[in-house]
Amino acid sequence: MIMSVTFHQTAKTFSQLQESMVKQFEAADGSGTFKYHPWEKEIGTGITSVLQNGSIIEKAGVNFSKVSGPCTPALQNALQTKASTYSATGVSSIIHPQSPWIPIIHMNVRYFELSDGSAWFGGGIDLTPHYVIPEDAREFHISLKELCDRYTEQFYPKFKEWADRYFFLPHRNETRGVGGIFFDRIQASDYPLNNEAMTAFCCDLGNLYPKLYARLIDRYRDQWVSEREKQWQHIRRSRYVEFNLLYDRGTQFGLASGGNAESILISMPPQANWFYNFEPNQGSMEAETLTLLRKGIDWINYKADGISY
Amino acid sequence: MIMSVTFHQTAKTFSQLQESMVKQFEAADGSGTFKYHPWEKEIGTGITSVLQNGSIIEKAGVNFSKVSGPCTPALQNALQTKASTYSATGVSSIIHPQSPWIPIIHMNVRYFELSDGSAWFGGGIDLTPHYVIPEDAREFHISLKELCDRYTEQFYPKFKEWADRYFFLPHRNETRGVGGIFFDRIQASDYPLNNEAMTAFCCDLGNLYPKLYARLIDRYRDQWVSEREKQWQHIRRSRYVEFNLLYDRGTQFGLASGGNAESILISMPPQANWFYNFEPNQGSMEAETLTLLRKGIDWINYKADGISY
Repeated sequence: MIMSVTFHQTAKTFSQLQESMVKQFEAADGSGTFKYHPWEKEIGTGITSVLQNGSIIEKAGVNFSKVSGPCTPALQNALQTKASTYSATGVSSIIHPQSPWIPIIHMNVRYFELSDGSAWFGGGIDLTPHYVIPEDAREFHISLKELCDRYTEQFYPKFKEWADRYFFLPHRNETRGVGGIFFDRIQASDYPLNNEAMTAFCCDLGNLYPKLYARLIDRYRDQWVSEREKQWQHIRRSRYVEFNLLYDRGTQFGLASGGNAESILISMPPQANWFYNFEPNQGSMEAETLTLLRKGIDWINYKADGISY
Repeated sequence: MIMSVTFHQTAKTFSQLQESMVKQFEAADGSGTFKYHPWEKEIGTGITSVLQNGSIIEKAGVNFSKVSGPCTPALQNALQTKASTYSATGVSSIIHPQSPWIPIIHMNVRYFELSDGSAWFGGGIDLTPHYVIPEDAREFHISLKELCDRYTEQFYPKFKEWADRYFFLPHRNETRGVGGIFFDRIQASDYPLNNEAMTAFCCDLGNLYPKLYARLIDRYRDQWVSEREKQWQHIRRSRYVEFNLLYDRGTQFGLASGGNAESILISMPPQANWFYNFEPNQGSMEAETLTLLRKGIDWINYKADGISY
């Protein structure tokens, strides 16, 4: 199948973005290094880069892929299209930290071209604290708004609300974390932007991502962790597993398109636990966290109301 | 909505089956006891019974439910029907043992009635050894064939092949375990049987289930477990999580119909681990197990070919 010049250029830019992110996360961790695992399958190529058992990061993946193929019925359904073929390139990343005081974080940017001539960008970033600290959520959202506003002020309000809707577990009636931004099927022409600007937006997001995370690492790296917090971390990770396997469209697209299973499932935490009907003690910091896992919180203007652990 | 007399009778029988199974598993464990958690939601009622941290059983669920409601588009899709309402009753159970030498096991029976007048039985049982021991798989399948043959010789070959197809992880290209039997949308009238016989078949299966498991408990309860086997158990459990959240129709039906999330997800293991690209050593018992996780093995006539751990 024929890929456009734009597609190849975007793929090259995303591949460089992967390298940039890997270097920044290695610096943030201080001791761990990513191993590169290139793969080649019928649908295309990719490089999975994985860091395991660093000082700060327990498991991280930064994946680049460049794939194309026929739109099977499952893919047509997933992509809501009747086009016969697609090309897709993207970078997808997730970090599971050692310490429960440091959040899980995820970022993804992608570019799609379909045989019907349509082309779009998608992506997002979201923060999943094991313990929700409103001030961290506020700073995270302020940084995202600043980034978005540099391109168009239409982005942040739209993409923030989209993240609230997307990163949500209906069976638990809780959000995955404190949200972030999410966008899909964005065509530059729908905004006062062109394709180069959309690519630049994706790269800015990808480069902001390790910086936002480094700030959280610095803040919590020395905080003492007891068994209680480790247990809670493993429970919160089980919700992360539930989201990714039950609802995440990237995971479903990847597996349905015959992608590399180990690369796609690098998002799985190193360890997750399920206890039947676990309920934190009233008034505990775990219980507080649960009250904050809901849609529609205006984090930028959030007043913490005396929450302090 | 109006439920038929048959529906109420079947639900009562299944409720008694739950009690019978609970008693048998408590006897097999020796020290653990099930706690009963009745629930009531818009769609109906149920009793979740859970055993955690027994001597042999780490986590077990034996769930009964009796529900009905409108067939939403998601449910119409899941049930492949255009009927407007459904009623469903069933017992579903799963056991996660402490020891990796003892397999995970699952059993489920269910009865459906739709507003278009159709009614059917479904269910199944399957064994997921952390280490596949061919002789255990052989005994398991012989017992299932004996049970099936008492009703009709059509069942075992059909249901065994169905289990191979159903309990399969396409993204891993591996079966969940050594299979068992699986059946869905079975109408008594398609066989030389009536509804009473189908209900009896389901109950016989439900009562055989703890007996088959008790045999495996007796065989492996005293086998020494090292760190290596625990690690492998946690990896195998992660595959179990992947199957249940990505593919299991019962889980999807339950969550889509607004069922009780904690009851449905009682199937999740107490702990699961994901390591990137874990590959067991060549010739190890872990590697042997992977070669046996494939469809189409005729376990009843399987010759072990010198596999022995």
